[in-house]
Amino acid sequence: MAKKVLKFGGTSVGSIERIKHIANIIKNENSQNNQIIVVVSAMAGKTNELIGYSNSISDNFDKRELDVLVTSGEQVTSSLLSGALIELGVKAKSWMNWQIPILTEGEHGNSRILNMNIEEINNFISSGGVAVIPGFQGISKTGEITSIGRGGSDATAVIVAKIFNTDSCDIYTDVDGIYSSDPNKIPVAKKIDKISYDEMLELSSLGAKVMQSSAVQAAMIYDIPINVKSTFSNRKGTKIFSQENIDYSKSVTGVAYSKDDAKITLIGVLDKPGVAADIFEPLGKNQINIDMVIQNISSDGKKTDITFTLKRVDLKKALKIIKENKKIKFIDIHNNDKVSKISIVGAGMVTTPGVTYKMFRALAEDNINILAISTSEIKLSVIINEIDTLKAIKKLHTTFDLD
Amino acid sequence: MAKKVLKFGGTSVGSIERIKHIANIIKNENSQNNQIIVVVSAMAGKTNELIGYSNSISDNFDKRELDVLVTSGEQVTSSLLSGALIELGVKAKSWMNWQIPILTEGEHGNSRILNMNIEEINNFISSGGVAVIPGFQGISKTGEITSIGRGGSDATAVIVAKIFNTDSCDIYTDVDGIYSSDPNKIPVAKKIDKISYDEMLELSSLGAKVMQSSAVQAAMIYDIPINVKSTFSNRKGTKIFSQENIDYSKSVTGVAYSKDDAKITLIGVLDKPGVAADIFEPLGKNQINIDMVIQNISSDGKKTDITFTLKRVDLKKALKIIKENKKIKFIDIHNNDKVSKISIVGAGMVTTPGVTYKMFRALAEDNINILAISTSEIKLSVIINEIDTLKAIKKLHTTFDLD
Repeated sequence: MAKKVLKFGGTSVGSIERIKHIANIIKNENSQNNQIIVVVSAMAGKTNELIGYSNSISDNFDKRELDVLVTSGEQVTSSLLSGALIELGVKAKSWMNWQIPILTEGEHGNSRILNMNIEEINNFISSGGVAVIPGFQGISKTGEITSIGRGGSDATAVIVAKIFNTDSCDIYTDVDGIYSSDPNKIPVAKKIDKISYDEMLELSSLGAKVMQSSAVQAAMIYDIPINVKSTFSNRKGTKIFSQENIDYSKSVTGVAYSKDDAKITLIGVLDKPGVAADIFEPLGKNQINIDMVIQNISSDGKKTDITFTLKRVDLKKALKIIKENKKIKFIDIHNNDKVSKISIVGAGMVTTPGVTYKMFRALAEDNINILAISTSEIKLSVIINEIDTLKAIKKLHTTFDLD
Repeated sequence: MAKKVLKFGGTSVGSIERIKHIANIIKNENSQNNQIIVVVSAMAGKTNELIGYSNSISDNFDKRELDVLVTSGEQVTSSLLSGALIELGVKAKSWMNWQIPILTEGEHGNSRILNMNIEEINNFISSGGVAVIPGFQGISKTGEITSIGRGGSDATAVIVAKIFNTDSCDIYTDVDGIYSSDPNKIPVAKKIDKISYDEMLELSSLGAKVMQSSAVQAAMIYDIPINVKSTFSNRKGTKIFSQENIDYSKSVTGVAYSKDDAKITLIGVLDKPGVAADIFEPLGKNQINIDMVIQNISSDGKKTDITFTLKRVDLKKALKIIKENKKIKFIDIHNNDKVSKISIVGAGMVTTPGVTYKMFRALAEDNINILAISTSEIKLSVIINEIDTLKAIKKLHTTFDLD
């Protein structure tokens, strides 16, 4: 007997047939005397549909009302799933954000869960009932409806696991785990059995879509082990937990990539303190996220070049801000909107000499030009021309024995 | 300056364009210094879609969860409309059922609004804001989500008008008022400027779809005058109010009909007390609604015939129950599943001699056979063969100068 959180994402509740299907998964867990709290997302596509409505009304739809709007989808799936469980003879009940309540803090559209009232739900699951609660939402201290950001249902599941002190947190999704690379692009990509929070964070922030970074972060902070598994197969999933539990026989765990990147290089910037701040502060204030930043030591101690990457959609705006910024002096500015970032990730990298060299050599063998390099303890990223993306992923996948 | 309830039905909020359109209607009302409370339905078709989902899961979907499910639609329209108003520069805010709260009593799916907290909304509208609240729902004393029955948004509007003591209650819909008959069937049908609660009740229960009977009943009980008007035209609508305010120059206000009826006649039933109860009690207990009941005085004081009408869909079940009921003795049983009911309605009928005679003569002139007759103070209904329905409506419409 265990106390479990089971979280089902949008595709897992994307149709009535699928809701019936997961009701059977839950019934099976419940029949093994487990205490079950289920967290559900809205039906796949529903949240985007609602946001589409709000965009048709205003470019700047009121944030309070947007939260009222987008949190309605989980009300639908919570009640449908509870009804499906009751139909199967399972004692089940849905709770809305305000009925528990799920207390949040922070701004509309980007709140954090602070606490939940656990007594009523604990009583219900202790007596054999399945509690179904909506992900992605809560209410503020003043009783306003708040959403906790896109993909927030994963974060809800992790926080529920923490607050209810459950034995596990299972994230059911439409893939059967975390892969060494995108299995749609790289047919030889392999499922990873165990991965650390850090590695998962690097993979998610680099484009792996399985779990949202904020949820992985929360799991890491609270040390909640996560099982990522498929709603649609019985295959063993991927376990995400702390690094010390993982035996690293391989230096590299996976190859990730991010698309839609762009690169800006400022040539001949003054090499003195405060220059980087002058460049990036106005970009940050304009909600432009900067990813990699590379600055070499200047040869003459006076001028240097700064290269940074950002989302392609922000490129125009960023160039305008830089050119209009009187504080920044530079000789020339280059930009490239056809680049992508390829990263190898692995907690074992730090203890394995030669990974860096091996990566660069492999790319050179396939005539892939490296435009910029950035490293961290468990990650090595390079910017390359977008056209080489697939070739690079395949090459690195093979190079690091991931096939 | 007036305090007003404006209620918009499903077709009036059925698309983003329509929501923008009604935001302009509301802005216009608000700019005339009126204090506005808006009650909204779900987008047209949405509630049926949700009920369809629940039916795909269970023939007997849990009633508590069904209420959670079906009340989600108004959350969407409340927030979209508030956002659309804010986009137009109008101060606006949505309140959910639990935020007001709207307190209800009664069973799931069929609750009644008991009370609402008016202070916060009164403050908001006094300061020029437009309050948007969801129709059709509330919460029970124990904090459960409750719906108040199909078409319940009209009832919400009436109760809001009562509790907030507003000067008027405007029901915006997709037709521009109440007609003397179905304008789709009878092109010469005329819009009625003024109609009494009683007449409206008879017309609604007889098939006029503009307003739900329960809402008209509530308006009558609290004496709340209703304006039914079109969202899509500027034509003057229909005012529904108490009888004493209406000047009856015409004896008959409208002609209504109901389709899908069936008729059962029991021949040679014992003419003694309790027989009718023996017949109808088991039908009622099986959720079969009986409409008209006609019983003549028996000629010999021993045996009589009883005719009654019911919905066609219930005919088979009713016949089975009667035949299996050992308490009822009869010589023969007839049934007819191809009948319809035509009614003339008018508060002036009671004071106008000859309406009854005129109706029967008119039908006879067109060779329409009357199968049964039932009368009330403001209504005269006849059961005829279904095939004669349209002919009868047209004839009566002309006979009573409604063209």
